[in-house]
Amino acid sequence: MLIVMERGASEEQIRTVTERVLALGLRPHPIPGAERMAIGITGNHGPLDPAEFEILPGVQQAIRVTKPYKLVSREVKANDTVVEVGPVPVGGKRLVVIAGPCAVESEAQTLAIARQVAEAGADLFRAGAFKPRTSPYSFQGLGLQGLKILERVRRETGLPIVTEAVDEESMEMVEDHADAVQIGARNMQNFSLLKRAGKSRLPVFLKRGMSATLDEFLMAAEYIVSEGNYRVFLCERGVRTFADHTRNTLDLAIVPAVKHLSHLPILVDPSHGTGRREKVVPLARAAVAVGADGIMVEVHNDPGKALSDGPQSILPGQFADLMRDLRALAGLVGREHG
Amino acid sequence: MLIVMERGASEEQIRTVTERVLALGLRPHPIPGAERMAIGITGNHGPLDPAEFEILPGVQQAIRVTKPYKLVSREVKANDTVVEVGPVPVGGKRLVVIAGPCAVESEAQTLAIARQVAEAGADLFRAGAFKPRTSPYSFQGLGLQGLKILERVRRETGLPIVTEAVDEESMEMVEDHADAVQIGARNMQNFSLLKRAGKSRLPVFLKRGMSATLDEFLMAAEYIVSEGNYRVFLCERGVRTFADHTRNTLDLAIVPAVKHLSHLPILVDPSHGTGRREKVVPLARAAVAVGADGIMVEVHNDPGKALSDGPQSILPGQFADLMRDLRALAGLVGREHG
Amino acid sequence: MLIVMERGASEEQIRTVTERVLALGLRPHPIPGAERMAIGITGNHGPLDPAEFEILPGVQQAIRVTKPYKLVSREVKANDTVVEVGPVPVGGKRLVVIAGPCAVESEAQTLAIARQVAEAGADLFRAGAFKPRTSPYSFQGLGLQGLKILERVRRETGLPIVTEAVDEESMEMVEDHADAVQIGARNMQNFSLLKRAGKSRLPVFLKRGMSATLDEFLMAAEYIVSEGNYRVFLCERGVRTFADHTRNTLDLAIVPAVKHLSHLPILVDPSHGTGRREKVVPLARAAVAVGADGIMVEVHNDPGKALSDGPQSILPGQFADLMRDLRALAGLVGREHG
Amino acid sequence: MLIVMERGASEEQIRTVTERVLALGLRPHPIPGAERMAIGITGNHGPLDPAEFEILPGVQQAIRVTKPYKLVSREVKANDTVVEVGPVPVGGKRLVVIAGPCAVESEAQTLAIARQVAEAGADLFRAGAFKPRTSPYSFQGLGLQGLKILERVRRETGLPIVTEAVDEESMEMVEDHADAVQIGARNMQNFSLLKRAGKSRLPVFLKRGMSATLDEFLMAAEYIVSEGNYRVFLCERGVRTFADHTRNTLDLAIVPAVKHLSHLPILVDPSHGTGRREKVVPLARAAVAVGADGIMVEVHNDPGKALSDGPQSILPGQFADLMRDLRALAGLVGREHG
Repeated sequence: MLIVMERGASEEQIRTVTERVLALGLRPHPIPGAERMAIGITGNHGPLDPAEFEILPGVQQAIRVTKPYKLVSREVKANDTVVEVGPVPVGGKRLVVIAGPCAVESEAQTLAIARQVAEAGADLFRAGAFKPRTSPYSFQGLGLQGLKILERVRRETGLPIVTEAVDEESMEMVEDHADAVQIGARNMQNFSLLKRAGKSRLPVFLKRGMSATLDEFLMAAEYIVSEGNYRVFLCERGVRTFADHTRNTLDLAIVPAVKHLSHLPILVDPSHGTGRREKVVPLARAAVAVGADGIMVEVHNDPGKALSDGPQSILPGQFADLMRDLRALAGLVGREHG
Repeated sequence: MLIVMERGASEEQIRTVTERVLALGLRPHPIPGAERMAIGITGNHGPLDPAEFEILPGVQQAIRVTKPYKLVSREVKANDTVVEVGPVPVGGKRLVVIAGPCAVESEAQTLAIARQVAEAGADLFRAGAFKPRTSPYSFQGLGLQGLKILERVRRETGLPIVTEAVDEESMEMVEDHADAVQIGARNMQNFSLLKRAGKSRLPVFLKRGMSATLDEFLMAAEYIVSEGNYRVFLCERGVRTFADHTRNTLDLAIVPAVKHLSHLPILVDPSHGTGRREKVVPLARAAVAVGADGIMVEVHNDPGKALSDGPQSILPGQFADLMRDLRALAGLVGREHG
Repeated sequence: MLIVMERGASEEQIRTVTERVLALGLRPHPIPGAERMAIGITGNHGPLDPAEFEILPGVQQAIRVTKPYKLVSREVKANDTVVEVGPVPVGGKRLVVIAGPCAVESEAQTLAIARQVAEAGADLFRAGAFKPRTSPYSFQGLGLQGLKILERVRRETGLPIVTEAVDEESMEMVEDHADAVQIGARNMQNFSLLKRAGKSRLPVFLKRGMSATLDEFLMAAEYIVSEGNYRVFLCERGVRTFADHTRNTLDLAIVPAVKHLSHLPILVDPSHGTGRREKVVPLARAAVAVGADGIMVEVHNDPGKALSDGPQSILPGQFADLMRDLRALAGLVGREHG
Repeated sequence: MLIVMERGASEEQIRTVTERVLALGLRPHPIPGAERMAIGITGNHGPLDPAEFEILPGVQQAIRVTKPYKLVSREVKANDTVVEVGPVPVGGKRLVVIAGPCAVESEAQTLAIARQVAEAGADLFRAGAFKPRTSPYSFQGLGLQGLKILERVRRETGLPIVTEAVDEESMEMVEDHADAVQIGARNMQNFSLLKRAGKSRLPVFLKRGMSATLDEFLMAAEYIVSEGNYRVFLCERGVRTFADHTRNTLDLAIVPAVKHLSHLPILVDPSHGTGRREKVVPLARAAVAVGADGIMVEVHNDPGKALSDGPQSILPGQFADLMRDLRALAGLVGREHG
């Protein structure tokens, strides 16, 4: 923490700050300047709140200089984490492709899509049995029946299953039937759910909240890891901005930013990130080019009839083409696939 | 829903759209224009997804024209809802002031503040026993012990209690001890928690999410009401923007916007809305001037030592001054207080 | 500037930073911490770019601690600036109300509105002769003819004239005919125009850009003042966010923020700030309650036929009611009017 | 335009709307629905303002269905525009790479960088002689002297020159010395400058404003084209959001969005788009992968000493590596380079 005093701050104001720092068991380091005094603070073990000092008279600004997360930080663990989802490593040299429909709608539909994405080379299968929907009148998912269908998908295709949990109850069911549990964007700061995920035996796929900063995103991961579950992989899925030509604004620059600060893998979801089918394929390519550890993409065999998010799903044929593109791209960014 | 065709869309493309509309059991209404054809759709009972039509060839855009919420809409109930929290009416002619510290820290601190805000004229007491914190290493609240302290506050001051629940478990405890349950901004789209609140016997104080649109905010309220609990009152608490001079950007224009579309009461929280003590009082005044049904404001008797959010809390003396201001302001906007 | 080194930064990396600081003619102040080293920098006269240090090996972050503006800062001039527009003081105890139609459309329309707002108590008259419009096909203003109509307004009503200039050419014409020149939101960072305004003999009414931070807003004012024109008054007019219930999100918290950092007056424009007539009056009230030095509001006698921005204009009768409200409000915030 | 009436709108309210439509010389098309009436409008030649109808009693919403731009629209010209900058085609099959320092600082520096980027395969050279800077105290560019240095760059390397104009005066100088004129982000809605660019004999490189929507971006291009200059090429350079891990949020999804709506070429500037050197290369790759017609990238031979924007510049060696990557990537997206 660095305290910047106002120009013309009095000796007494400076002393008050210094005493407050000492009272907190910390060490003040005065830095006199031409125009004003600054006071560095060291000795704190957790984060300090800038506002704690900004309320003192004569203080212009208090600036936090240490990042609040620890366990997910690359400073604590320098080399990349690889998370195993079933037998599939996420975060290593190999790109990971998670594919499937937005929601489990029926056994026939789910199995048909699963066979197609497996054949095209997907690594993990995704489909929601529990759907967080903006409207209470929209389809909310098949629940346990959906999870059983997903188990059948795994038996038939060999693909491990990633699926969302939205509360304690669904978390327990997902743990019994799937290979990784997804925490969705709307629950990125549902801290009770994060702590519960931190006690799960499953790896956790954590999506960025709609207006989460990089720090908040990593702190949400820290919640999970601090409970003992180190198997976390992240997902950028677009943030909310004024821009109205896509449903969200996909923030690809967060991929190198996460790689710089954290050892956790990060994937990109261009389906939710754009909300429009014709933008999914170009943004999926861009995600691999920017250095993501993989992508998650929605595939549906009849998007016009999909019970949720149909318009952002691509068709199996488009997915197969995309997989070919990604394999070629992978080599250019030091990755491999297939 | 209105479908706008591309310029030069073929007869066959138009027919495809028309047939799709009919297949969905709806009625198409062709509107030929000088430059392009449009097709109105009627007969739907729930909302349609624009993208369901935008994926058809020749379609430029599909535009939703009906709002997705019903029960919270002023079209369904024209007159203002008044929610009773204990004996205190929220949403009527009388302004409502909710005050108290961010968190219950100890019995002595909580009671001291409660007595001061009661004396100054607060209507409801607030303090968190369960705190959603960005960092897992921050103070998370006293839990059940905090709720018992709040009960003592009610016994001693007569003020009804509003406090936050963050999950099923804390919801049950809050129901046993408080007069209204708060759903915080981070949980505004925690749909499991919303549904649970919809089954509660307590009124629900729902805060706007950090990047929630007006529609999403009202849909979150619709989740609660659709489960049978009509006692919902809303709170604007600032949204996330690029602006860096306050922690959030308080969006006061949502007050007349909610009043126009919904019969539910709406309050404003200038403490979280700005994050800085010196802005709380001016923004509290502005909230009353813009027509809010009340305000929620954080008051602490020693903000420098507050365990959470200290710097946005005002002092009891400032609160008493603010109450005097609000009483004078109330008359100017057709309200009353005290 | 404060340089924060990475944990485990080497002695050599720290020396490199120190030498770079010295090479720039500045003084380094090492602050050793438990976890990492920080280095304070003093002796700079203008702002330093954090990135200049962040590119050095071992540096985690460089943090700017001095504000980049000087002349507009309250540190340079502690007491409030009062700008005289004709005989009207802007920024003093008296609230200022600027009113008029968005654009000068005709002499009859402009005079009719001017008489009505003058009678209701407006202090300054506004109407655009040069209109920056998003579309090249929209009405662009009457130009010189409009300015002559505005002169006639002044002769007939006595109200000084505030009107926008959009380039060098219109600036010269505005200087010949008006009492204050407005720089619009879209030109807030048109630095050539700002410098030109800094050489004007007229006071300058500077509107905040659509996504301008507080620092950028004050720096734009600094551009004008640094050329020698100290007569600048500011205007908040809403910023661009994801929120879709108003055209812009009016950021009233910037009023106390500007007051804290700068001696310049700041007004609020609730007409552009909301874009919707029914929100203008409540937000105008809120602007006065939050402590603005005045408001600018669009008034039209036939908003349905206005050539630009009709729907955000209020009617003369509504304006007269608003003036009565503001007078009552003014007293509550230590102001006066009328 | 589609007018949606409120539920329970009266016959008279509907008639008022209909008569207003007729009075404007347009045709109303009533669309009765189960819950409410809607009225389609046809016959307008320019855009209508929704608010013009929303102010009428009983109207819930008016929805614009026609895009306001014409000449830049793909509906008017279906095939891609190719803009020639000197002998270099922008917008065709070949990727275009614009490279150079942020500002012309000296002849030696500029020539040295120019030779390096030319050798590595750049197509166009960029460097600012007129710099729009947030602070009046920052380096503002060498002006005419800078343009003469750029002419020498062209003579020595053969690279055509792209450089920014910020007003009428600099526009004339740029026209005399460069091959394309850039309109920067801060001037994207400086309509006087856009109209002037529309009369230029040079092609115009138009950068997206910091908070410009897709429609506003295309309307700014329409301003130029409507004055007769069809040689416009666009540039995404990041938008302003709450995200704080990059200076701007690069919005790559606008590339396929522009391609869908307009025939104009669009490039991406990952240097301003991220503001940080280590993110430039990954985002440059992503820009090509998403389908941009090219990139603009800042290169400096001593970024630590650059007079402006040093930290976002890459080194000549990094640029040469990037060029190799882009050539490989180009083939994967149906492009070519070198």
